[in-house]
Amino acid sequence: MTTGTPIMISVPNTDQRGHDYKEMSLAYRPSHADATYDFKYGVRSVEGGGRSSARETIGRVAAGAIAKKVLKKYSGTEVLAYVSKVHEVVLPEELVDHETLAFDQIENNIVRCPNPEYAEKMIAAIDAVRVRGDSIGGVVTCIVKNCPRGLGSPVFDKLEALLAQAAMSLPASKGFEIGSGFAGTNLTGSQHNDEFYMDGSGRMRTRTNRSGGIQGGISNGEIITMRVAFKPTATISRKQNTVTRDKIETELIARGRHDPCVVPRAVPMVEAMVALVLLDQLMAQQAQGYLLGINPELQDPLHRFEIANAE
Amino acid sequence: MTTGTPIMISVPNTDQRGHDYKEMSLAYRPSHADATYDFKYGVRSVEGGGRSSARETIGRVAAGAIAKKVLKKYSGTEVLAYVSKVHEVVLPEELVDHETLAFDQIENNIVRCPNPEYAEKMIAAIDAVRVRGDSIGGVVTCIVKNCPRGLGSPVFDKLEALLAQAAMSLPASKGFEIGSGFAGTNLTGSQHNDEFYMDGSGRMRTRTNRSGGIQGGISNGEIITMRVAFKPTATISRKQNTVTRDKIETELIARGRHDPCVVPRAVPMVEAMVALVLLDQLMAQQAQGYLLGINPELQDPLHRFEIANAE
Amino acid sequence: MTTGTPIMISVPNTDQRGHDYKEMSLAYRPSHADATYDFKYGVRSVEGGGRSSARETIGRVAAGAIAKKVLKKYSGTEVLAYVSKVHEVVLPEELVDHETLAFDQIENNIVRCPNPEYAEKMIAAIDAVRVRGDSIGGVVTCIVKNCPRGLGSPVFDKLEALLAQAAMSLPASKGFEIGSGFAGTNLTGSQHNDEFYMDGSGRMRTRTNRSGGIQGGISNGEIITMRVAFKPTATISRKQNTVTRDKIETELIARGRHDPCVVPRAVPMVEAMVALVLLDQLMAQQAQGYLLGINPELQDPLHRFEIANAE
Amino acid sequence: MTTGTPIMISVPNTDQRGHDYKEMSLAYRPSHADATYDFKYGVRSVEGGGRSSARETIGRVAAGAIAKKVLKKYSGTEVLAYVSKVHEVVLPEELVDHETLAFDQIENNIVRCPNPEYAEKMIAAIDAVRVRGDSIGGVVTCIVKNCPRGLGSPVFDKLEALLAQAAMSLPASKGFEIGSGFAGTNLTGSQHNDEFYMDGSGRMRTRTNRSGGIQGGISNGEIITMRVAFKPTATISRKQNTVTRDKIETELIARGRHDPCVVPRAVPMVEAMVALVLLDQLMAQQAQGYLLGINPELQDPLHRFEIANAE
Repeated sequence: MTTGTPIMISVPNTDQRGHDYKEMSLAYRPSHADATYDFKYGVRSVEGGGRSSARETIGRVAAGAIAKKVLKKYSGTEVLAYVSKVHEVVLPEELVDHETLAFDQIENNIVRCPNPEYAEKMIAAIDAVRVRGDSIGGVVTCIVKNCPRGLGSPVFDKLEALLAQAAMSLPASKGFEIGSGFAGTNLTGSQHNDEFYMDGSGRMRTRTNRSGGIQGGISNGEIITMRVAFKPTATISRKQNTVTRDKIETELIARGRHDPCVVPRAVPMVEAMVALVLLDQLMAQQAQGYLLGINPELQDPLHRFEIANAE
Repeated sequence: MTTGTPIMISVPNTDQRGHDYKEMSLAYRPSHADATYDFKYGVRSVEGGGRSSARETIGRVAAGAIAKKVLKKYSGTEVLAYVSKVHEVVLPEELVDHETLAFDQIENNIVRCPNPEYAEKMIAAIDAVRVRGDSIGGVVTCIVKNCPRGLGSPVFDKLEALLAQAAMSLPASKGFEIGSGFAGTNLTGSQHNDEFYMDGSGRMRTRTNRSGGIQGGISNGEIITMRVAFKPTATISRKQNTVTRDKIETELIARGRHDPCVVPRAVPMVEAMVALVLLDQLMAQQAQGYLLGINPELQDPLHRFEIANAE
Repeated sequence: MTTGTPIMISVPNTDQRGHDYKEMSLAYRPSHADATYDFKYGVRSVEGGGRSSARETIGRVAAGAIAKKVLKKYSGTEVLAYVSKVHEVVLPEELVDHETLAFDQIENNIVRCPNPEYAEKMIAAIDAVRVRGDSIGGVVTCIVKNCPRGLGSPVFDKLEALLAQAAMSLPASKGFEIGSGFAGTNLTGSQHNDEFYMDGSGRMRTRTNRSGGIQGGISNGEIITMRVAFKPTATISRKQNTVTRDKIETELIARGRHDPCVVPRAVPMVEAMVALVLLDQLMAQQAQGYLLGINPELQDPLHRFEIANAE
Repeated sequence: MTTGTPIMISVPNTDQRGHDYKEMSLAYRPSHADATYDFKYGVRSVEGGGRSSARETIGRVAAGAIAKKVLKKYSGTEVLAYVSKVHEVVLPEELVDHETLAFDQIENNIVRCPNPEYAEKMIAAIDAVRVRGDSIGGVVTCIVKNCPRGLGSPVFDKLEALLAQAAMSLPASKGFEIGSGFAGTNLTGSQHNDEFYMDGSGRMRTRTNRSGGIQGGISNGEIITMRVAFKPTATISRKQNTVTRDKIETELIARGRHDPCVVPRAVPMVEAMVALVLLDQLMAQQAQGYLLGINPELQDPLHRFEIANAE
């Protein structure tokens, strides 16, 4: 049971920012970090979501842009993410060809879905929920093409583990899959295993890629594939039950601007985090391989950029 | 197209261990780490799966046992994992009460499923696949009861990110979910948000727990809930296409002992990794809270053990 | 043999900053970091010494100020540094009583020497070298009073090792000593050992302190004593032989403002680095001691500040 | 004032190990780590000096041996340490030519001093103190030849800072100097600076090397020179005042085998720690240089070993 009139709060409007937040500071926003930050630090900063705003990721995206450039130049490695699900709109996997997928296809529309038809459906889903003052989430799929073999390591720092940490450190992320993910548990080993073969150009390849480009913590040269789930935005303009910092039950209605679906904005964040992990691992691999030697017979040819090497 | 007769290989039998592996060393096992280890290090050790055997996790489980003891003593914190899915047998969530779930219920049967009826079904599924020389995977659910508030941190080392890395560093893991996970993307914000309320004893609680005990990277005092997907075992005794280290296509049949489903064995591994992450974070929290102070009004009462404190 | 006329360079003057550096960019300053930065990065930024300017330490001093406050509040721990040598002026050890030494004594004069008579001598030495366009170095002594017992660890991260790294990371530092240091090698074991005794108040103490407050990597509760050597400033206004980036031999005369002795400025830098190391170690010690317990009988009483503890 | 008869203790004899230590466990050895370990952990293990025995360094020396091999192969880098002082016997610097110094010269005698005459004096000094049941310390000088340019970094992880930590993490070390060290404070800038010149083979060199091969945290290609002070061994067989764990004053006489001077044994420890630091930094440098490029014009030619490079 709540006590008295609902607290009317607002998330930032350009014109009345300071004012709106004063109201919101009285009550914790459900499923938002402002309560747990307060539990931990005993200090709140509610303006703009405070320190937990997804705006924090701007530094990640900037650093990721540099990482992408180095990866591209060194080995033609390309990191591409796109929206594959918005609420109940699921982009069928067979409609995206990872071999040919390109940046422009993704950036072609506002929801960053490479298929125009499904992009429309996603935009409609977001619009529908916006008018109701509610929010929705979805899934970002991320792939890495031309990733060199041998990145990652065998125990605690498996490549999929580092990618999982990186992705799950993004605001609102609730799940991570590599390759076949949770659906892979529906297959038997004989259905799931990726058989090896020699392709026309003498490269050792796998016919399928349920491993998602990583086996035993180490990249195998196939396309790395991941999926990251993002929950619906916590801040909504519908009345919700909550409590104040002083432990009084109340109701809360968030007013002003808010983003009904963050998933399209998460696309560059996921790309950035994946690129940063890969560059770290590439540096580690070069440090080791360059000094201690690796077996060149087992590597793929790199599209190496001309570097002024340490001579 | 493969060249000539299938290579017959075996995974270890107690009686003929050395012999069996000699054969297997010729060909890479599909979806197994031995190919990628070779790509990275240029050195193979195939006996017993070599360095990639899940036996590596014994040290994790041993360390986790100590972490669990400290957590239990300090704050009554309890880490419990169980098998919630084996191939197509899915334990319905409503059949497990996380509030009352106890260790004995889980250890009651060989598949570590707390529901006896579903345990039987899982055992039957494993037996069925065993006789066919095939393998299956599944899902481990892990919960943490009485986790203190305030563990974790806001940016790269969000608690869910650290747990994801820990879980995804286990052999054969392909996916990680916290709270509502991927299924949460089917809800709207108003359906998904965990509303706050004051319980009878003056504790600030949430009515639902789709956040899975963590909001914005920091524990909120509710039960932490995770799910980890494990793929079917890679080593099977059915004929598969593969290549040798010398890049010759061939066929491979693994003989001897092998585990048709590793999921029950993954239960203590998941518990151990979760306990280690939590103890690390508890130590970090104590270091900070003890020296810089935290707001006692916003903490839950701990069931603290009597310590000889630094005075 | 040099080629042609000396290059006239200048270090920054408020009025002509940009202009002066243009000249200096042609030649490497002897014993200055700008050559090695160029070897490593292939990029030079010569204005104001570039990235190697000691101005970089401002962030360390700011962070150290916070660390000092926490240390003071938690356990009355006090970090104090002073100039004990400038070129050939050596402050005799017996003229400083570490038990009673206070901040004001040190800050009483511009060279930060707690003895006024020697401060005068140091100032005179600096003035003498300034007019000759030359520079001098010296030694900073740093002590820590009321350091809790048990900080540090036994192997790679011995407390003296961490302090050494911290001090030797300061610009121009060339040597570090803890306790008896190099002079201690002139003593025999029976002369050097610090015998234990019980003082009037029941505290276990050592009669001498040649260990410098640390034994086997861990603080013992006595005053921590260190000495850090700083070389004479590299940038001087006297003609020196050098080479340009293009490998042409030349001569260089630095013009404009430059600091003939950085040692007094190093005092707050040393204090800051020592305070940061101690706070790190105190946090580690609290994390461990609070959760795993330590023997209270063997600790000194702390002057603990009132904290809102995790209950 | 002590209470009653001296406690007779012994350090390990092969024949009566367990027995001797029982006595020693009653009293803390002055200037030994066993008191501080007890303060920190509340647990003592006194046999063989317990966990603080210098035998711990065996793992460092083993790892260092591998690091030395890689350094040698990659760039002809050689790490050599020797005893330059034992108690009052000081080896004059001009008697050792660092350019030509070789391993065999050092290993030629039991004190690891490259000058036979001074080696005799050192041996005599150790013998003299041994018969008196006392101990002495000294100084180890360490040099690195053919260190590649560009190792280290500009701020907290300056190469001299990392070397200082490494050296000061060795048991009994009390001081560290790089290049001119403490003596360098007696020089003016114009005397101290290392002027650049071009040598006959087109290499940029410095005429002097007071920097000790490192400027601003980064190696410059000259010989790296360090000195590490080691105090006299704490455990001696002369009567000393001390206290027991129960805070009773007593006297202590250590019996049995003990090492009157550890300095010659410290020589391989110093080499190992220096080699480990350099290999770490070389790996970091390769990771960065290989991916981001460095200016080849500013590097020295390496004596690179043939590696199977990442292609």
